[in-house]
Amino acid sequence: MTRTEIASLYQSPASFSGKKVTVCGWVRTIRDSKALGFMELNDGSCFKGVQVVFEDKKIDNFKEIAKLNVGAAVTVNGEFVETPQAKQSFELHACEILVEGPSSPEYPLQKKRHSLEYLRTIAHLRPRANTFSAAFRVRSAAAFGIHKFFQERGFIYAHTPILTGSDCEGAGEMFTATTLDLEDPPRGEDGRIDFSQDFFEKHTSLTVSGQLEAECMAMAFGKVYTFGPTFRAEKSYTQRHAAEFWMIEPEIAFADLNDDMDLARDMMKYVIRYVMDTCPQDLQFFNQFVDKGLIDRLTHIVESDFAHVTYTEAVEILKKHNSQFEYQVDWGVDLQTEHEKYLTEQVFQKPVFVTDYPKEIKSFYMRMNDDGRTVAAMDMLVPGIGEIIGGSQREERLDRLTARMKELGLKEADYWWYLDLRRFGTNKHAGFGLGFERLIMYLTGIQNIRDVLPFPRTTGVAEF
Amino acid sequence: MTRTEIASLYQSPASFSGKKVTVCGWVRTIRDSKALGFMELNDGSCFKGVQVVFEDKKIDNFKEIAKLNVGAAVTVNGEFVETPQAKQSFELHACEILVEGPSSPEYPLQKKRHSLEYLRTIAHLRPRANTFSAAFRVRSAAAFGIHKFFQERGFIYAHTPILTGSDCEGAGEMFTATTLDLEDPPRGEDGRIDFSQDFFEKHTSLTVSGQLEAECMAMAFGKVYTFGPTFRAEKSYTQRHAAEFWMIEPEIAFADLNDDMDLARDMMKYVIRYVMDTCPQDLQFFNQFVDKGLIDRLTHIVESDFAHVTYTEAVEILKKHNSQFEYQVDWGVDLQTEHEKYLTEQVFQKPVFVTDYPKEIKSFYMRMNDDGRTVAAMDMLVPGIGEIIGGSQREERLDRLTARMKELGLKEADYWWYLDLRRFGTNKHAGFGLGFERLIMYLTGIQNIRDVLPFPRTTGVAEF
Repeated sequence: MTRTEIASLYQSPASFSGKKVTVCGWVRTIRDSKALGFMELNDGSCFKGVQVVFEDKKIDNFKEIAKLNVGAAVTVNGEFVETPQAKQSFELHACEILVEGPSSPEYPLQKKRHSLEYLRTIAHLRPRANTFSAAFRVRSAAAFGIHKFFQERGFIYAHTPILTGSDCEGAGEMFTATTLDLEDPPRGEDGRIDFSQDFFEKHTSLTVSGQLEAECMAMAFGKVYTFGPTFRAEKSYTQRHAAEFWMIEPEIAFADLNDDMDLARDMMKYVIRYVMDTCPQDLQFFNQFVDKGLIDRLTHIVESDFAHVTYTEAVEILKKHNSQFEYQVDWGVDLQTEHEKYLTEQVFQKPVFVTDYPKEIKSFYMRMNDDGRTVAAMDMLVPGIGEIIGGSQREERLDRLTARMKELGLKEADYWWYLDLRRFGTNKHAGFGLGFERLIMYLTGIQNIRDVLPFPRTTGVAEF
Repeated sequence: MTRTEIASLYQSPASFSGKKVTVCGWVRTIRDSKALGFMELNDGSCFKGVQVVFEDKKIDNFKEIAKLNVGAAVTVNGEFVETPQAKQSFELHACEILVEGPSSPEYPLQKKRHSLEYLRTIAHLRPRANTFSAAFRVRSAAAFGIHKFFQERGFIYAHTPILTGSDCEGAGEMFTATTLDLEDPPRGEDGRIDFSQDFFEKHTSLTVSGQLEAECMAMAFGKVYTFGPTFRAEKSYTQRHAAEFWMIEPEIAFADLNDDMDLARDMMKYVIRYVMDTCPQDLQFFNQFVDKGLIDRLTHIVESDFAHVTYTEAVEILKKHNSQFEYQVDWGVDLQTEHEKYLTEQVFQKPVFVTDYPKEIKSFYMRMNDDGRTVAAMDMLVPGIGEIIGGSQREERLDRLTARMKELGLKEADYWWYLDLRRFGTNKHAGFGLGFERLIMYLTGIQNIRDVLPFPRTTGVAEF
């Protein structure tokens, strides 16, 4: 008995018509009346399940099967029957059903609808529920779509380190990683903990960004991207922040901010199209039950051109509408989500790049513009969410970079290797960061980051 | 001036013949005599560079260019000239050369050959050296080949968590991740550190394996794989161990050990073939300068069938040759690399699966065989390296699993969610783990794990 996946049945139903197939999966629903029963079987190969019809006169163990609980694992050997009149276009008429593993009335995923909050407490089982089955299938497709996009264009996938000895990435609070006996750590003469006796003979943390290392790789390969976990130790209870999340950080040499925006736009369109092509059943589900405008919104992004406005222009536009905002806009302040959404949803009604932000609200490595006030940064804003990508041209001029670091009180010694990139064969280069969970929320309409991560880690929560 | 990558020139040289092209890259070598100069330019798009010929009478800044140091970044606009008689089959005759970023005589990567040890101290620059350029290109291709293999077969890519609250994965020493003020941590009534005040309100560590979580996902999707960083805090100074490394862990439902071995074999053949097709220049370099038998060995794996022997049979074979081994073989002891290599290189002369190991030397979750002494484990051994993959069928029977855990002193409460998988819809399932760096070492012939990781983290070393 070769097993057939349910996804294959949907791909070419005609080729199975009248044939015997063997399907393995988990019972989603089951009911029976006397000598006839129905179960919906799902095997995770696609969003939809298959209806299995079982009859007392056709299988030996009708009573055993009729008593099965939701969640049981079974192998069904049956005839594939097309049912063009019915709601589902085909079903299986069972000849044999083997119970692989039973379930029980205590199985937490009964047919009734559960709250997302409750489902978070059973993260080990919730991938079997529709929302998460679809979300993690989209997540997998989106991840591959991103790899495919970059690899097809000759980018090198760079594994930048998770453990980092340089505590100066500057993007946020960090977790310390240590093997010291914390109850009784070794101490130096000053009485403080002696991290030179730690595993790496220095204090180490979990990375907040692979960008600086990705720049090293871009200066050898020309085009690289990272795709890995990053960490922020800020206490946050919002729907948008997790302590552990995945980031994609491309970096391109011999390239300026325009090249960077082109890349970000092309990538975004590519991955959306890839997921729409790969996961139509899943997106249909989200469009119907989670976010009614989802497919239209995604289609719109794929088809529209992207607007471009400088920060200074954006501020001029937004200031006219300050009465509508909780936070007032003025030149020099960072844009809030409400402003970003207003720009992309109301003003431009399509994705928009905002560029050339005041240097004070951006990172030290961003390239100074000739005005001396703004840097060559860009944010991509999209309807429904606001900022989804942030990037910049990097400061490739050694003298400008060290001057800016001095202004900000950063020590050159901590960045010697980063500065070396400007000493030896520097060139204009640029990159951006895409928070992968933010993308999945955008692709699914799911509002809480906890529901797009298989095992989310947020402030106070590292269950499982 | 649209930039052309050097890889494109090699892909279809004829299409460029006689045309003007613009190439950006870094100077690998440069020499001149009076009015004529040559530089080798590399842009990282492929292993090979392109020879640029520059003449005083053709470019304005001959003197500036002739004085350039190795490592400088330049943009060359020139005519593509085929040179069928020469060592390299084409060259560029420069019309214009722009200096993007100079270099200096202090540039550490001068033409002379450097030791790998030295190059490790300049991890930010070494990707520009041949060995690392090739190694990280192979690494990127292998990563994508693995994703491609699994995605084409309908596997779901599962991001299992890095930070874990369960300190019971059992695969080795772990790093603690914390945001507590370690100099003055909060303490409980017993005087010990109160981790309930830590970021996750409990003690958390860095994962050593995503397998248990991958099993949760496999019980929803049928076929899943992880591909992410894992951590081991064992002090080790060998060439084979890093504290941070990447692992691939597929997990398949409704599958037994034979399915697992088929999957491991198919994946290994696929990824080797993919890298051979994608990186021929790089493999040629390794074959010539690093490991003379490399391409033959890889070809052999792709083309050969795989042998299969039980652990018990393997021990019988090996015992006859105990005089040749440092460690004597006897039933019940774990096989050492010398034994593994002997089996695959001398006895079978091809890859071999060893299965059904004594339960005492394997993990608690492996499925007990009917003999009560061995478990349904498998290791894949390959010539030149020994074990490259380890996997098993998992114990799907709740009573057997809890009995084994009791024998080993593991608490059921710590594994409640893992045991739930056996309570609700359990089924025979299996999986394996592939250490990604081990694979890259195998694909390149590189002997030290520090040289296949862009920024290696090993005992005492977390530079950059």
